[in-house]
Amino acid sequence: MVFENPPASELITISGVQTLEKGGELNNPVVAVERLGPEDAPVILIFTGLSPGAHVASSEKDKSPGWWEFMVGAGKAIDTNNFQVICVNSIGSCRGSTGPASINPDTGDYYGADFPDITIWDIARMTGLALAEINVQEIFCVIGPSMGGMTALAWVISYPQTTKHMINISAAMEADPFAIAIRSVQREIIHTDPEFMDGNYAIDAEPLTGMMLARKLGLISYRSTSEWRNRFGRKEDGTGSEIESYLQFNAEKFCRDFDANCYIKLSQTMNWFSLMDEINSPVDELAESKLESALIVSVSTDILFPPHQQKDLADLLNKSGIETTHLEIDCPHGHDAFLVDEENFSPVVKDYLGSISG
Amino acid sequence: MVFENPPASELITISGVQTLEKGGELNNPVVAVERLGPEDAPVILIFTGLSPGAHVASSEKDKSPGWWEFMVGAGKAIDTNNFQVICVNSIGSCRGSTGPASINPDTGDYYGADFPDITIWDIARMTGLALAEINVQEIFCVIGPSMGGMTALAWVISYPQTTKHMINISAAMEADPFAIAIRSVQREIIHTDPEFMDGNYAIDAEPLTGMMLARKLGLISYRSTSEWRNRFGRKEDGTGSEIESYLQFNAEKFCRDFDANCYIKLSQTMNWFSLMDEINSPVDELAESKLESALIVSVSTDILFPPHQQKDLADLLNKSGIETTHLEIDCPHGHDAFLVDEENFSPVVKDYLGSISG
Repeated sequence: MVFENPPASELITISGVQTLEKGGELNNPVVAVERLGPEDAPVILIFTGLSPGAHVASSEKDKSPGWWEFMVGAGKAIDTNNFQVICVNSIGSCRGSTGPASINPDTGDYYGADFPDITIWDIARMTGLALAEINVQEIFCVIGPSMGGMTALAWVISYPQTTKHMINISAAMEADPFAIAIRSVQREIIHTDPEFMDGNYAIDAEPLTGMMLARKLGLISYRSTSEWRNRFGRKEDGTGSEIESYLQFNAEKFCRDFDANCYIKLSQTMNWFSLMDEINSPVDELAESKLESALIVSVSTDILFPPHQQKDLADLLNKSGIETTHLEIDCPHGHDAFLVDEENFSPVVKDYLGSISG
Repeated sequence: MVFENPPASELITISGVQTLEKGGELNNPVVAVERLGPEDAPVILIFTGLSPGAHVASSEKDKSPGWWEFMVGAGKAIDTNNFQVICVNSIGSCRGSTGPASINPDTGDYYGADFPDITIWDIARMTGLALAEINVQEIFCVIGPSMGGMTALAWVISYPQTTKHMINISAAMEADPFAIAIRSVQREIIHTDPEFMDGNYAIDAEPLTGMMLARKLGLISYRSTSEWRNRFGRKEDGTGSEIESYLQFNAEKFCRDFDANCYIKLSQTMNWFSLMDEINSPVDELAESKLESALIVSVSTDILFPPHQQKDLADLLNKSGIETTHLEIDCPHGHDAFLVDEENFSPVVKDYLGSISG
């Protein structure tokens, strides 16, 4: 397995021992970020879903396509001519930031199973500490899809005086029981793979059977039934149906460079997160923040973070006096729509950024 | 593991070697049925979903509750005062009918991994042969939910001159790619359990880890997100969330008496089934059948067999000149609604049977 940091990412070290929400500690943790666009332009801070790294879009420094290539770049919806874009790889991941597949500076060995539990709040807080190291204090707009949307909420609560606007896509104030169940079965599939060995597998011998199956189940939940109906033949034959080949291909691609312990840690953060349970009065806290407006985006066919959750979030923000728009995109691409549906997502993001840039 | 036949079921042996659709053979296969109500009354034939046996409702012979207890019995929607009810355990199951957990008369040992592939068409045809053994030739109404709905369709095509009416619930002419994917991952989870040993496990040492996980995934797909939202607390704690306990409890219950090879064989039948691909002209074949009317029932929140599939089925039947009604029940119980939603399902079935009994 290779956990290489893409060339355009910067590794920012946070000095000292950092205590995490669940009590664990990280010594000199690293946060990987990618910065695109002029350094003196207003900052757009992007948190990612569970699996992408900080490499959000291609640039001179890294010409390979980023995970949000259609959205970010010169002249695109998130225009790097007008904004400085900072994309963050979450703590706990294996794409540059400190996570279970990183070397523990205290032991010289991989963290592996010893990596402490992390939460969405930790991801937000470590990002704040990292941005302080590079003197980024003011955020024009924070953007987060999926897990990144949860992190964006934790960010706004954790650093209430930094951020003026927010785009929150296909995320929620807390996970839905259906999503909790799917993720819990995914983790159990990995746990029960004999190669997992309670997380103590060698870094180059990950529990591939469990990871493949967990990822396949993830892929099923990320897209919609209607998309697959149009895309795939229906039937199995002796060698497997089209949809099975699709799952196999995409799970293999993912498992080539994603660490099982990282997957488990990040999956858990989403099940734990709850704005309502963990914050005394979210309405008041948000009202006291610098947040002026927000755009909340739903996808009609998302079964993992269904639209009613984004409606609830928009209601909360409006109650806090933040001018909030809730848009539901009617498309067949399910939870992953923001990654593939350029046609619907680009104008929505572009129009909102245009409206707040005034 | 115990594969006991409930006392009210009859085991009907079909004499001779029977060749199956995929080329395999069964020597003297057995079909388990349960008969309730007067023997001279019009027959209602019930096919089941993947897991239930023939024990559909309690009676003098077996006082334990059946799998459709609220629906079948004296004075109930399927009234055993007026109808003879015959419920069928599918070939391939482990609840009385011949399946992988049965003894192969040729070897004296369990079939296990040697059990041949079966299809929905085989389930229908073996049922026809078994009913011939007990001189049941005329069916007033065939009823099937889920896999049983597919079997009811195969029944009507296979025995076109036997059956006057049909109730088809939460089923389809062919599986949806989403359902195919879920079932394919379920089977792969069992296949990759080291205890599965290519199906060659001892009958009392089934691959429990894989079965538990496959069943949990099944349970997730059988219910709806909205039901779980109302039913369960959202969060995980150290010992697991409410929804995880629910999955654990129900999967344990199921795995206590369901055989892994049976699960795999029956799961496969649903992925293979296609009325459109396998029958030259379903419209013409159905038009030439004795079928006069049909009731097709959908559940709004079913993600496994979504309502558009039942609409397609109703359209096909209407095109064949069969007077068909399509009803969509708007309830939060998902695919399993017919098993739990007495309030919505009893009147629907009762009214239809009343209307055709004239």
